Amino acid sequence: MNVSQQIDTRAAASERNMADAIRFLAMDAVEKAKSGHPGMPMGMADAVTVLFNRFIRIDPSLPDWPDRDRFVLSAGHGSMLLYAIHHLIGFADMPMAELSAFRQLGSKTAGHPEYGHALGIETTTGPLGQGISTAVGMAIAEQMMAARFTSSLCNHFTYVVAGDGCLQEGISHEAIDLAGHLKLRKLIVLWDDNRISIDGSTDLSTSMNQLARFRAAGWDAQSVDGHDPEAMAKAIERARRTRKPSLIACRTRIGKGAATMEGSHKTHGAALGEKEIAATREKLGWPHPPFFVPPEIRSAWQRVAARGRMAREAWEIRLDASRSKKRYERTIGRELDREVADLLAKFRAAHRKKASKVATRQASQMVLEVINGATALTIGGSADLTGSNLTMTSQTEAIAPGNFKGRYLHYGIREHAMAAAMNGIALHGGFIPYGGTFLVFSDYARGAMRLSALMGLPVIYVLTHDSIGLGEDGPTHQPVEHLAMLRATPNLNVFRPADIIETAECWEIALGEKKTPSVLALSRQALPMLRQSEGEENLSARGAYVLKEARRRRDVTLLATGSEVEIALAAAERLQAEEGIEAAVVSMPCWEKFEAQDAAYRRQVLGDAPRIAVEAAGRLGWDRWMGPDGVFVGMPGFGASAPAGDLYRHFGITADHVVAEALELVRGDYREAPLTRPRDVITSSREV
Amino acid sequence: MNVSQQIDTRAAASERNMADAIRFLAMDAVEKAKSGHPGMPMGMADAVTVLFNRFIRIDPSLPDWPDRDRFVLSAGHGSMLLYAIHHLIGFADMPMAELSAFRQLGSKTAGHPEYGHALGIETTTGPLGQGISTAVGMAIAEQMMAARFTSSLCNHFTYVVAGDGCLQEGISHEAIDLAGHLKLRKLIVLWDDNRISIDGSTDLSTSMNQLARFRAAGWDAQSVDGHDPEAMAKAIERARRTRKPSLIACRTRIGKGAATMEGSHKTHGAALGEKEIAATREKLGWPHPPFFVPPEIRSAWQRVAARGRMAREAWEIRLDASRSKKRYERTIGRELDREVADLLAKFRAAHRKKASKVATRQASQMVLEVINGATALTIGGSADLTGSNLTMTSQTEAIAPGNFKGRYLHYGIREHAMAAAMNGIALHGGFIPYGGTFLVFSDYARGAMRLSALMGLPVIYVLTHDSIGLGEDGPTHQPVEHLAMLRATPNLNVFRPADIIETAECWEIALGEKKTPSVLALSRQALPMLRQSEGEENLSARGAYVLKEARRRRDVTLLATGSEVEIALAAAERLQAEEGIEAAVVSMPCWEKFEAQDAAYRRQVLGDAPRIAVEAAGRLGWDRWMGPDGVFVGMPGFGASAPAGDLYRHFGITADHVVAEALELVRGDYREAPLTRPRDVITSSREV
Repeated sequence: MNVSQQIDTRAAASERNMADAIRFLAMDAVEKAKSGHPGMPMGMADAVTVLFNRFIRIDPSLPDWPDRDRFVLSAGHGSMLLYAIHHLIGFADMPMAELSAFRQLGSKTAGHPEYGHALGIETTTGPLGQGISTAVGMAIAEQMMAARFTSSLCNHFTYVVAGDGCLQEGISHEAIDLAGHLKLRKLIVLWDDNRISIDGSTDLSTSMNQLARFRAAGWDAQSVDGHDPEAMAKAIERARRTRKPSLIACRTRIGKGAATMEGSHKTHGAALGEKEIAATREKLGWPHPPFFVPPEIRSAWQRVAARGRMAREAWEIRLDASRSKKRYERTIGRELDREVADLLAKFRAAHRKKASKVATRQASQMVLEVINGATALTIGGSADLTGSNLTMTSQTEAIAPGNFKGRYLHYGIREHAMAAAMNGIALHGGFIPYGGTFLVFSDYARGAMRLSALMGLPVIYVLTHDSIGLGEDGPTHQPVEHLAMLRATPNLNVFRPADIIETAECWEIALGEKKTPSVLALSRQALPMLRQSEGEENLSARGAYVLKEARRRRDVTLLATGSEVEIALAAAERLQAEEGIEAAVVSMPCWEKFEAQDAAYRRQVLGDAPRIAVEAAGRLGWDRWMGPDGVFVGMPGFGASAPAGDLYRHFGITADHVVAEALELVRGDYREAPLTRPRDVITSSREV
Repeated sequence: MNVSQQIDTRAAASERNMADAIRFLAMDAVEKAKSGHPGMPMGMADAVTVLFNRFIRIDPSLPDWPDRDRFVLSAGHGSMLLYAIHHLIGFADMPMAELSAFRQLGSKTAGHPEYGHALGIETTTGPLGQGISTAVGMAIAEQMMAARFTSSLCNHFTYVVAGDGCLQEGISHEAIDLAGHLKLRKLIVLWDDNRISIDGSTDLSTSMNQLARFRAAGWDAQSVDGHDPEAMAKAIERARRTRKPSLIACRTRIGKGAATMEGSHKTHGAALGEKEIAATREKLGWPHPPFFVPPEIRSAWQRVAARGRMAREAWEIRLDASRSKKRYERTIGRELDREVADLLAKFRAAHRKKASKVATRQASQMVLEVINGATALTIGGSADLTGSNLTMTSQTEAIAPGNFKGRYLHYGIREHAMAAAMNGIALHGGFIPYGGTFLVFSDYARGAMRLSALMGLPVIYVLTHDSIGLGEDGPTHQPVEHLAMLRATPNLNVFRPADIIETAECWEIALGEKKTPSVLALSRQALPMLRQSEGEENLSARGAYVLKEARRRRDVTLLATGSEVEIALAAAERLQAEEGIEAAVVSMPCWEKFEAQDAAYRRQVLGDAPRIAVEAAGRLGWDRWMGPDGVFVGMPGFGASAPAGDLYRHFGITADHVVAEALELVRGDYREAPLTRPRDVITSSREV
């Protein structure tokens, strides 16, 4: 007999009142803020009340209890639904004062639910489609944990409330295809099927048969009256039993209960107004003032919390009795063995000695072979570019329907869902996900990558083919603006290592980040080992460092990242040998880390000499480092299709060209470099 | 009797040979380049030969003939399929020498098909899912043209070849939902159903029933043997007759014909090798050397061109006889009436006089009311944010199934498909599409926006709610890095107008661009009219200009865009009145245009005084304009949920703060501004 069946039907008698409590808290909070979305909380109050009252196991006294059910409000604009419930079941940080401060500076009740901002928020939602797709990752993680421990330690559902917007967004297609394929039977989506979107009726823009669509993807799909508690309960029970992920289309009326506006898109995104709310109090027989919930309704909601607490305590007893307790706790806490750092240090020392020349994507795979051997926390994957991203290692057996012991996800040609699923895996706990695609296709994953950064999740993006160095595939595949786009994103480390040593260093830093996602931008083409010093220090951790110092004074400083550091070094050597010009070379694998260094270190690294920046990407952002007299050698626009070497020469990203620029900077003596394009197209101008 | 039925069945006898010509050209070109994708051209050669041989009407002697059928190779990596056909039917720029220079610098045969790079390429493909989604826009445009003229002037099909990747990508969901809803009956997608993706069998990552999925979206869907010409022909005939968009699943074997590798994912993305190709010549009975096509096969292909030419000539006769000829030609040529410019000049003059204070999104709507009244070329739309983006005007009746006379598309909650459809509408010709969403959701549209820029299409993105000024919706809805992301994109104008005058100016510039897409970043909040000068000149066309000059010398220069120009002006006035400090204010509505000015103008605008940049976004990119001693007043990271005014104060984007920074810059005398956050969090540091 499961927990839901223990609830007697008396509880059902008050579900209407429990739902009305949500309705009025939502109406009143939005009204006070004069901002927000009452329509969805009112429309879904009945369905979600049944879900919480009869099924969900969460414990407000221990919101992070690992085996709790996950509740994801994918239609995040209906945040008052979540805040009202959190208040009613007694989350410590959600007193009534927070509800009445809805959407105000410093309140817990932000416009959309934000992970980490208030207790019990499982993921940040608002950008439509993210919640349902993140939930797929959570459900994958649940199955992976269950496969690693017994179902007595991991056995929970992931529930999602999604709106029409979530199902129209493209990411939902990627996510439901993946979920259906993997048969994520404990993923249950309640779709708020109200047939209203912001512009009006959904008839304006869609004729999709959603049930047929989900069934085509391998889901169980039902449609029920979302205002009928018994029908809802039956549907949820069936969804919990089926061996497939489940969609429940909850036929609802937006703004359900509103005196005159029920069913109208006007309830979607604005306060209803005092008059309408007063009339709604009348209509629904709710005589209470704003922000007041009568004790009997409050205590009905508190039974939900009590059930959650009991479930959590029972789980703790099972955990205490388990022989796997220690391993479970280390896993769920994502504790990395110290061994990983030691092995990576050894790896670096060995390859410095060997001077291994490999593409940084291949270096990354070699590093991953070490990491995946030393910890079982890492879960690899690729958006159907496994052989290009080199994200698979000898330890990473593929996950497949029925086999969640594996450690590798074939995400399919689905960059956006991959990123969202990685967010979900990280949010669930127990794993460190990394996944690969080409750097240029970070475009496709942007929406979810931004949420990795906003939520501060330890997710690692392995983005290979990071410049024109990928060659023949041409401009559609050659990133030019993507480093800038990613560097502009707050709380995201963008690493672009120059060789095998920096690759190992950057991986080590990325693994150590608890609150910041990482991008590793990696080359397709082979790059020589460049590290000059013998020290053990992880120099990439400083963000930028002097790879090669000038012998006496610095005449010029060459700044570069990734595959262009080799070019800068070659230029420096030629300047010294042929021209007697002393050039220092600074490798800058991570701007964000460099920015975090103290000013003295930054000044020392950048030096006082004029600077030339070399990167096979656009200029935006480089002026900060190269200064007003600096010269940028990089991409003037989109790339082209040709072998990589030809492209580097074509765009003038060559040692020849750097030498020519240095001569002009140092001596005012420009010597024409052998370029196939006019020089003014190749370099951005020297002046503002 | 339609054109296809005029082809007698004798042609079918040689279709196998015609297809083999494609196969060997693809194999040989990839082999010579040692780079490329032979598997798809070989697998789809039979199906596409039937399509071209029996149905398609294109005329290589006039590739841009407006009523040609559109052929979109959505699986763009199979570019040799397209180049081989273009060679065989006689495109002037595709002699055999180009095929043998596949993927080399300067050749017409780029790695992926690039619009504008060679004749007859309808759209740039490669990033998966873009082709099929762009084709939806082309098919919409076809219906719109047919609704405006008779079907005797516009009556063509849009054919797409899509792969598994195209159908797995999320954008495909958005696109097929929209196409099914609009009943785009002349859109026909041939899906290369080879069950192979890069990682291996598609079973690794999907269990989707694609036929059921497309039917759920309102499509006609069939599955046929892609190697059976008669079955293919029947399927295409049915697809042309049905009243719905059509999917034809072509069951194929990747690398069809290859001696030992047929059916293997190894044929997907690499040369087959000399041995395999020799064996394949043996197996298929193809005794010819590389890059040679026997005359009888060549002449079979030339019949395709001849049929296209006949169709084009017949169409020209109809056009010449049509009373609508002049209107048709002006439409297809996207000729804007001169009246538009005059009306916009009047609009600016009137509102300068009235000093209208409105949100720039509202100003945009007022401008659009003028534009849409003066030209019928503009096609509006929004991704379900019509009332927020203010993209609808009195002239823009909605397009709906069966009504393509309208001028407004309810794109649904589908930013990515909206952007791709706008690309398709622009590529088709006859219209200037503009579409709205929130600036932050440019994330969702990135893949297609990049292609707008790469292809150089006159597409206009109306991106409202452009900063923390949107207020309560919080950080998920507040763009911070998006201006940098868009500015980093080559060939994209990013406009951020400061008031109603600049909004009108920026719209005028955007409308005039033939080869560059535009972003208009617009405020949610009201902004006062700021223009000081009386002149008629479109000052925004300079990209940046001195809005308010200092009276005598300049002590400091304040740079700002959009809603922050008001703040800079207020600070300048206070500095003058209270401190006797002379500040110039520079409005920078478009960096790209400013960059294109001559150095003297740029120097004059920026001046020699120290500079403060003010923008409610991240710093990346600003150092170029503010110089090494500059100070940035903007966003230090993600936003927060609160009323807009509170957020501006919280993040220190205020005149108070600008004044304090100016005092320190000019006098070294920092006066604490009233900030709610520590200052070092608010401003980025002054030094590198």
